[in-house]
Amino acid sequence: MGADEGPEEMVRGGLIWAAKDTSSRLVLVGHSDRVKEAMLEIDDLPENISTEHAETEVPMKVSATDGVRMRDSSIAVGLRMVKEGRADAFVSPGNTGAVMATSLLTLGRIKGVLRPAIAAVFPTSTGLPTVVLDVGANAECKPNHLSQFAVMGSVYSSVILGIETPRVGLLSIGEERSKGNELTIATRKILSRTDLNFVGNIEGRDILSGTVHVAVTDGFTGNILLKFAESIKPMLVTAVQRQVRSNIFSRFGVWLMLPFLRRMRGTFDYARAGGAPLLGVNGDVIICHGASSARAISNGMQIAADMVKLGIRHRIQQELMNNHSGKENGSSKKGSDIGNGVVHPAGSDNQR
Amino acid sequence: MGADEGPEEMVRGGLIWAAKDTSSRLVLVGHSDRVKEAMLEIDDLPENISTEHAETEVPMKVSATDGVRMRDSSIAVGLRMVKEGRADAFVSPGNTGAVMATSLLTLGRIKGVLRPAIAAVFPTSTGLPTVVLDVGANAECKPNHLSQFAVMGSVYSSVILGIETPRVGLLSIGEERSKGNELTIATRKILSRTDLNFVGNIEGRDILSGTVHVAVTDGFTGNILLKFAESIKPMLVTAVQRQVRSNIFSRFGVWLMLPFLRRMRGTFDYARAGGAPLLGVNGDVIICHGASSARAISNGMQIAADMVKLGIRHRIQQELMNNHSGKENGSSKKGSDIGNGVVHPAGSDNQR
Repeated sequence: MGADEGPEEMVRGGLIWAAKDTSSRLVLVGHSDRVKEAMLEIDDLPENISTEHAETEVPMKVSATDGVRMRDSSIAVGLRMVKEGRADAFVSPGNTGAVMATSLLTLGRIKGVLRPAIAAVFPTSTGLPTVVLDVGANAECKPNHLSQFAVMGSVYSSVILGIETPRVGLLSIGEERSKGNELTIATRKILSRTDLNFVGNIEGRDILSGTVHVAVTDGFTGNILLKFAESIKPMLVTAVQRQVRSNIFSRFGVWLMLPFLRRMRGTFDYARAGGAPLLGVNGDVIICHGASSARAISNGMQIAADMVKLGIRHRIQQELMNNHSGKENGSSKKGSDIGNGVVHPAGSDNQR
Repeated sequence: MGADEGPEEMVRGGLIWAAKDTSSRLVLVGHSDRVKEAMLEIDDLPENISTEHAETEVPMKVSATDGVRMRDSSIAVGLRMVKEGRADAFVSPGNTGAVMATSLLTLGRIKGVLRPAIAAVFPTSTGLPTVVLDVGANAECKPNHLSQFAVMGSVYSSVILGIETPRVGLLSIGEERSKGNELTIATRKILSRTDLNFVGNIEGRDILSGTVHVAVTDGFTGNILLKFAESIKPMLVTAVQRQVRSNIFSRFGVWLMLPFLRRMRGTFDYARAGGAPLLGVNGDVIICHGASSARAISNGMQIAADMVKLGIRHRIQQELMNNHSGKENGSSKKGSDIGNGVVHPAGSDNQR
């Protein structure tokens, strides 16, 4: 309901997915009048679709704190369905802060998780995606939060994106051990004692070059980076359009290159990527861009379905627990198919 | 001497500038054998050139602490010339950490400056550049550091880039007053009490869109952002090249679009921009990319010359002092042609 373009585009996206994944069921959550109206536009309604009424919607401009108080919003209703087992996953292009806060409040955290994190998938030169997390759930982070992000990102890369032993890097300034800020220096120490495939510090340039499969950072830095990356495409599009208008040769050149330009546009089109999983909450939640296209929503639904089918939450819990107990007993639990997790040095805060 | 491509390209760059700006004088600092060898390649040596011998060079891989100890490196010799008044400015494509640390040690800080900052100029959709600082001098920052960065960036934008009343934004996550981390929330309070043209929080997307002329951030976030931005160009170039090889229509299309593609390449070519000023040290210092082309070096020399001629250090000192005393006396000093600076709330640390 709260998406930039209203519910019509979202309904269309949901239907693309529902028609494809006929073994799954789609529930459209929103004000029944609006949702039905949007459904009228569709000719061939798949059968695996139902609706759930929500009286209100969280506006985009509202703070997370205010959003979470709206107990009958489409966000609250959808997440309660997950909590009550009437849905397996929740996909929303609505107010990010409200989805995050309501997810945490309604679903709680996976056992052992200190802080949930939003993971964004960046395109790279290698063709393999890089998972960057946290991109906005936590403005202030502690070393133990970051080391858990590394575990969750590694599980996501392995289970959902199919990368066998994901290379994990810590986003910092300078590759040397001593470089970075207090947070990254302390995090690096923890991460190098885990069984993750941790390659050490990486720099901003290593994300697009695909040096690692998982880039760990605090939610402040990650969010600024994601928003910056999202703004590359509009800048390129404006530049190409200006060129097309100014020069007949370029106009022809652009025409010849259209398939390529479309692909490049897709490369930097984060809104189309299908949304970012909120990892660490006790339910499968995908946060989509407010300006998501139907295609992006459909992709987001597919990722959510994969998360459910592949049991990502169970895998995250397992990896965090394995590591925790393994390390505390002084034994090194090698042999897990994906890297293990987090060591908590004495005196560090294991509580939130 | 420490540049990626060796001194030849640097000498060539210096000569491009020296031939253009005949009222200035160029001193090539480096090992005399290597510098003379590089000069042999040049046919028409301008007359406003001399050399200064430096026995050693700081390797790129050395830490700032080790680099600063090399008292007869080309970096140390060049900066001593500035200190002793035998040169007005220093331009270096060498080890950034070493240039920074040696500058601070040799030249000291401008009176009133808590922390020097590296300013990078980002291209934007509007065509007007955005100054982002700090991009790497300070991994950990306090609110008073950031508010001084805002003053220094505003002076740079106004004096060197010619923007009349630069709009200053604080890089954060979310535009609301309450959004961000502890650092930005505290900084925002300070900045909104200054006479700067402060527009509040901005997000990562606002840099390329040119919403502000000055974007203030800590050196950790700024460095990651700059390195990420620098990596866009290689990614685009690789993609275009791959396309050219794969498809004859695209090949022709690319050929027709070459002037445009070259310009786009230039847009994201931060190495070509001419280097980043190290603002706040008591001497005019430009830090260039290690992979700088001759053209980039020449541009860097021009910026350094402008900084000297326009007295940027004096202007920074003035703006910081004006504001400081003005605010402490409780009077609001309006009427300065660029915004004033920094308020130090009681109990904040004014010392480094």
